Amino acid sequence: MSLIVQKYGGSSVSDAESIKRVAKRIVATRRAGNDVVVAVSAMGDTTDDLLDLAHQVAPIPEPRELDMLLTAGERISMALLAMAIENLGHDARSFTGSQAGMITDAQHGAARIVDVTPVRVREALDEGAIAIVAGFQGFNRGTGDITTLGRGGSDTTAVALAAALDADICEIYTDVDGVFTADPRVVHRARKLDRVTSEEMLELAASGAKVLYIRAVEYARRHGVTLHVRSSFNNNEGTIVYNPTEPGRDENGVPVEEPIIAGVAHDLTEAKITVVGVPDIPGKAAQIFNIVAKSGANIDMIVQNVSAAATGLTDISFTLPKSDAQAVLTALTVERDQVGFSTLQHDDQIGKLSLVGAGMRTNVGVSAQLFTALFEAGINIEMISTSEIRISVVTRADMLNDAVRAVHSAFGLDGEAEAVVYAGTGR
Amino acid sequence: MSLIVQKYGGSSVSDAESIKRVAKRIVATRRAGNDVVVAVSAMGDTTDDLLDLAHQVAPIPEPRELDMLLTAGERISMALLAMAIENLGHDARSFTGSQAGMITDAQHGAARIVDVTPVRVREALDEGAIAIVAGFQGFNRGTGDITTLGRGGSDTTAVALAAALDADICEIYTDVDGVFTADPRVVHRARKLDRVTSEEMLELAASGAKVLYIRAVEYARRHGVTLHVRSSFNNNEGTIVYNPTEPGRDENGVPVEEPIIAGVAHDLTEAKITVVGVPDIPGKAAQIFNIVAKSGANIDMIVQNVSAAATGLTDISFTLPKSDAQAVLTALTVERDQVGFSTLQHDDQIGKLSLVGAGMRTNVGVSAQLFTALFEAGINIEMISTSEIRISVVTRADMLNDAVRAVHSAFGLDGEAEAVVYAGTGR
Repeated sequence: MSLIVQKYGGSSVSDAESIKRVAKRIVATRRAGNDVVVAVSAMGDTTDDLLDLAHQVAPIPEPRELDMLLTAGERISMALLAMAIENLGHDARSFTGSQAGMITDAQHGAARIVDVTPVRVREALDEGAIAIVAGFQGFNRGTGDITTLGRGGSDTTAVALAAALDADICEIYTDVDGVFTADPRVVHRARKLDRVTSEEMLELAASGAKVLYIRAVEYARRHGVTLHVRSSFNNNEGTIVYNPTEPGRDENGVPVEEPIIAGVAHDLTEAKITVVGVPDIPGKAAQIFNIVAKSGANIDMIVQNVSAAATGLTDISFTLPKSDAQAVLTALTVERDQVGFSTLQHDDQIGKLSLVGAGMRTNVGVSAQLFTALFEAGINIEMISTSEIRISVVTRADMLNDAVRAVHSAFGLDGEAEAVVYAGTGR
Repeated sequence: MSLIVQKYGGSSVSDAESIKRVAKRIVATRRAGNDVVVAVSAMGDTTDDLLDLAHQVAPIPEPRELDMLLTAGERISMALLAMAIENLGHDARSFTGSQAGMITDAQHGAARIVDVTPVRVREALDEGAIAIVAGFQGFNRGTGDITTLGRGGSDTTAVALAAALDADICEIYTDVDGVFTADPRVVHRARKLDRVTSEEMLELAASGAKVLYIRAVEYARRHGVTLHVRSSFNNNEGTIVYNPTEPGRDENGVPVEEPIIAGVAHDLTEAKITVVGVPDIPGKAAQIFNIVAKSGANIDMIVQNVSAAATGLTDISFTLPKSDAQAVLTALTVERDQVGFSTLQHDDQIGKLSLVGAGMRTNVGVSAQLFTALFEAGINIEMISTSEIRISVVTRADMLNDAVRAVHSAFGLDGEAEAVVYAGTGR
């Protein structure tokens, strides 16, 4: 008997009919002889509707109360899902984050899991029941208060339960068929990946692929949880996200031939800020990024141009989420005389393309091939950054889709048939 | 400094605007120098909407899961109310039934309070915060599960908190101005009562007055909690429901002149069943009402006609909620030969009028005056039952409103002006 953790996103439980459909799938998994634990998100747009209400009564809702409010969403979906399963003749029991032992710190709205003690979930399984756990929510022991895990929290709930219960697999159900070599809405010949390493998945997620949240992948990687990303709308096999025992081997130590490139991710959510005319003396970069850090912004790529010896000045560019740009511009402007730069440039018309693949580590020439492909497609590169298994480049925003298609083709990723494209993203 | 518990029903918090209005009223009470604890119901039709959803996924929802589902309603309203108060610059903290220490038995859907330990509510008050508690919900220690208190549960939550915290008063906010001498929609000259004893309120509630639920009044009476039933839509004084220290004295032992009659209640929700041709031998009534009790029905009035000596047979009539009638008819039919009656009659066109007043106890002639008033209005009486402070009569359903008006007038209850009539009932 296997223990399977399944996660269903809001689009998979958007109304009574879809809840009944998901209930059938869960019962089928149980009847196939598996123990089943389910983490479920709030129905469809419930969370957004509750947020709307909150902003109607208070422009800046109190974080503790906002968490109390939002957790009502999963409470509704999990209770309905448990009822629907009971109605199919199978014992089911729903548990809040607190009842399921999802212990977090006290950071309302973005709490981090500090311990998982799913005693009641285990009891329910031992009694033959299917356990339904509210995604996205936790409980702080110190304050006794309810918390939420932030964006993608239900994925994290599922992975954390899978780790704590030593599950055989954690299935992430969404409204797409799995992880693709590129966004099928941009690259019509994008292929579904059968397998991808958690390291690659992490880079893909960090580079704009929306099918899984970084935090959940990180958690899965750290705790050795194997994920299966698949659609709740069909029975197709999805994508296995696995943790290699060592490079070139799969999660069971069996040798595998790793493709050099897993996929191409793209991201239109970042802006670029350039600090122009920075004195080229030691400590200036540190000074600038301390100011940026204090404003709470998350920096992504950084490029410092070679100093023009004649002037003794240099330019420093960095990318960051568009939503953080204004705060950073303000913070830097305040400290302008202190730092001694001349002007700030703000560019929110950039796009980022990332090529990700574990095989890249042992394969020289990938960058050259990437730059050639972009050059041949007539696309200018504005910034470059690399990790061991990723190369990212910044282009003009309006050239990004062309860039993704050109690179996808150049690395031989195009499939035979057109990928099926869905409307939503399964969040 | 007084401690005031306030309860707001669903119609008082039906949307963001009304939540903001209620928040202002709560803050005003706090700023007047009182400690404030609030019990709040789910917004408007939330509970009905959730019930609809439940029945869409399962014809007979599992009771544990139904409670889990329905408690989402108060979670939403209480968090929004706390945010709205914080937004007015006052500290507020919301608590679920479990967090507020509302300990119940494990009877899902109709749990009874077994203990109230509002430690966190008290802490919040000590720290100067306004405490917002989810009405209607509790927590069972044995199972660790969430429960609900059943119909009118938020009133009960408020009263139980007032008792446990030794509050000075428990204000029940609704959409009518208080308790009236009769339903203002039937008797246009019905008067709002300034004061009524909890004993009278209990009889009025049990006789069909909808402004307060019996269980809450019972709880208030048993624990000596003074209630103030008033409108959340204006600042008028409502009706004080008090516990006399002894007959003829108020809650503080001050002598009061009690009116003979507090009011006239009416009820169209009952049906009458007559068991015809019962052998007039000892034990037959017990046999019949054992069968009725087993079917789970709540009997109200019982009348046994004098036996016709010649036949040795008698008829037994009783009233019960219309919704229970079919189950009782079936149960009796099954046992017909065993009991030995001839036929069953089912009448769902009856109405019940009840005259309630603590002064009735020491005042002879009230029944005679009641029967005279009904006779003069041309209304036939089909059944009669009495308690120490109540007389109830059954009439034809279509004569009930006329009967209520006639009796209201005959006992001098008519006010000078027409009562303001509202659409809802504040549930």
